[in-house]
Amino acid sequence: MKLVQDEKTSGAAAFRAPTRSLRIAQLAPLYESVPPKLYGGTERIVAYLAEELVRRGHEVTLYAAGDSTASVPLAAGSPQSLRLTGLDHLGPILHMPMLSDVYDNASHFDIIHSHVECLSFPLARHACVPTVSTLHSRLDTSELLPIYRNYSDLPVVSISKNQRRPMHELNWVRTVYHGLPRDLLKFSPQSGGYLALLGRISPEKRPDLAIEIARRSGIPLKIAAKIDRTNQEYFESVIKPLLSSSEVEFIGEINEAEKQQFLGAALALLFPVDWPEPFGLVMIEALACGTPVIARPCGSVPEVLCDGVTGFIAASLDDLVAAVSKIGDISRQRCREEFENRFTAEVMAANYESVYYDFADIDWRCAGQLRRSAASLSTQRSSVVARPDSYPLVSCDRANGR
Amino acid sequence: MKLVQDEKTSGAAAFRAPTRSLRIAQLAPLYESVPPKLYGGTERIVAYLAEELVRRGHEVTLYAAGDSTASVPLAAGSPQSLRLTGLDHLGPILHMPMLSDVYDNASHFDIIHSHVECLSFPLARHACVPTVSTLHSRLDTSELLPIYRNYSDLPVVSISKNQRRPMHELNWVRTVYHGLPRDLLKFSPQSGGYLALLGRISPEKRPDLAIEIARRSGIPLKIAAKIDRTNQEYFESVIKPLLSSSEVEFIGEINEAEKQQFLGAALALLFPVDWPEPFGLVMIEALACGTPVIARPCGSVPEVLCDGVTGFIAASLDDLVAAVSKIGDISRQRCREEFENRFTAEVMAANYESVYYDFADIDWRCAGQLRRSAASLSTQRSSVVARPDSYPLVSCDRANGR
Repeated sequence: MKLVQDEKTSGAAAFRAPTRSLRIAQLAPLYESVPPKLYGGTERIVAYLAEELVRRGHEVTLYAAGDSTASVPLAAGSPQSLRLTGLDHLGPILHMPMLSDVYDNASHFDIIHSHVECLSFPLARHACVPTVSTLHSRLDTSELLPIYRNYSDLPVVSISKNQRRPMHELNWVRTVYHGLPRDLLKFSPQSGGYLALLGRISPEKRPDLAIEIARRSGIPLKIAAKIDRTNQEYFESVIKPLLSSSEVEFIGEINEAEKQQFLGAALALLFPVDWPEPFGLVMIEALACGTPVIARPCGSVPEVLCDGVTGFIAASLDDLVAAVSKIGDISRQRCREEFENRFTAEVMAANYESVYYDFADIDWRCAGQLRRSAASLSTQRSSVVARPDSYPLVSCDRANGR
Repeated sequence: MKLVQDEKTSGAAAFRAPTRSLRIAQLAPLYESVPPKLYGGTERIVAYLAEELVRRGHEVTLYAAGDSTASVPLAAGSPQSLRLTGLDHLGPILHMPMLSDVYDNASHFDIIHSHVECLSFPLARHACVPTVSTLHSRLDTSELLPIYRNYSDLPVVSISKNQRRPMHELNWVRTVYHGLPRDLLKFSPQSGGYLALLGRISPEKRPDLAIEIARRSGIPLKIAAKIDRTNQEYFESVIKPLLSSSEVEFIGEINEAEKQQFLGAALALLFPVDWPEPFGLVMIEALACGTPVIARPCGSVPEVLCDGVTGFIAASLDDLVAAVSKIGDISRQRCREEFENRFTAEVMAANYESVYYDFADIDWRCAGQLRRSAASLSTQRSSVVARPDSYPLVSCDRANGR
């Protein structure tokens, strides 16, 4: 059993050495394979986490779509990922056999780590082992709030502190930031002369604002983005007319391998979002390449970026344009260091491991009745299995000595 | 405790007197209120069943939409029925709090009777008391087959024998036909001079065929039907052009109170369906009024109707037209008797009660591991808790002395 305590992991995880190998079920959404063939943030993170946990000596079983290719033992929850089979409209029901497979065999695990949002909650309450759920989505949708409130006894992990805001009454036990394999993207010491926009075309990502920032700055913009069916009209009517300028190049969707060149050669990544971004994986992809990020202060942005250190955070168009003019002040080396210190898969896995140890030793079955009573008696957060919040990673302020 | 053994109940239920009051959870879909304000077969049946079980001395808790008005204690699974709130696209997820409410409190019941199709299956396996599920839908959809196959250990009730055909490997424990309160619709000894079509406009209900039957017979047709959004185009392009004849009257959707007059005054109900009808509630509504039914031999039709006794079963247009010409041979009194003998809420409740007694005395928790093993080891039907099929109601042939 190999348990590496990487010195680059920090905070709480660094203070607690892995004490024993755990039997861990990782429960992924079935919409995309793990990792996904194209777009799919959650499934990518599950792949990185599962593989890193195996490297750390744990026994991981990945419950995921049958076409998953992550290098861990797979329990296929469906023959193929649902998006490919055109059955995603039946989503929740098609997850049921996988959920049963996990929970009928719960005694084979020390901990179940769910990434399927609320779908695992009803069974988690009845299981003989604890389930920790990472919520990957934005939570400010009023339809779902009443659903989640029913499960305020179950431990949940946020991917940013800001993500918790609309549902503060849940039993939040930790924030664990996403991480990428250290060598997935390499440091590019020299940048090219363009600004980059990467992701998907949609109004809340504000590609129109990115184009305006580039135009006013007089610096070329390259856009690598997918266009969903639901956003095709927005693209045609709003964005396409703005692409006529020779300074804007639209290169469509790119794959993982193409990101190195695209992000690494950029002067900066533009991330002018106008929605409560739960995490924003592309920001740490840029940092991994040494590329600074210019972003609006929405959602997770102030937690992921250090203003003036790994890029600039600004709300208005004027301030965003001013940020581009100052981008030479940012050290690309420092951006890469921030990635290595806070956003690698090792750091993420060490932090999750610490959460697992917290829960794996609880007598979950005995705690169950008490949990359920607490949940039904009160709308307040249950304190039965909750720990005080802790954010083990070095915060932006501390990292900068401020 | 009032336990009535109604002499009109028949078959197995008649041979076994209710021995004790049971604590029964009735778990209804949240799409419509119980009973529904307009269309909604499942929710109507749950209302009739729950109210009849209370009359028989049982302690019933109805888990259903908060705007339900059935005369039994209600545990609201949602503030309102989902169809009214426009949230039905989130259906399965919005059922989760109700499912948790039932199964977190399972020890308060002797039996859980689920009408939410497969949604209760994962939790049913982990409960300390048995769940019997009535499947209300057609089951010949290839997408769902692999889902249901995973739960072949759990006891299910069909609403017709024919309904089982696409999923014979499930653990079918009984067929229980739907029933209506005895006095909901009254016997009409005299009919008027028109044919009736009642339900919803859709290609598989073959309203076009009904119009052709009436035209060739030279008898007026009245159509009382709702038109779903999904079938609006079919109505406009196929059915509306056929309504020009003065012999066809389209009167739109009617409510429960209007059915008495509409069905009671009809010469016959036309039911020329072209799909595997799981039950066909409108057939027994007609019989309750003494109105015979002319139907195509699809799905449940040969089980519900007695050819030549309560109407005629015919496949081709010629034979359906011939059936109309012979309709005077059918005794309206005999149609009402068939309803009273086989399709009242009393008969239905007595049959479900018999199923409940079969399961309520099983040590469900101990049987659980064995059930799950059987389910995972074999695709064959588990025999651990299954009884041989039995169809306790007097069959069509026996009723006719043939």
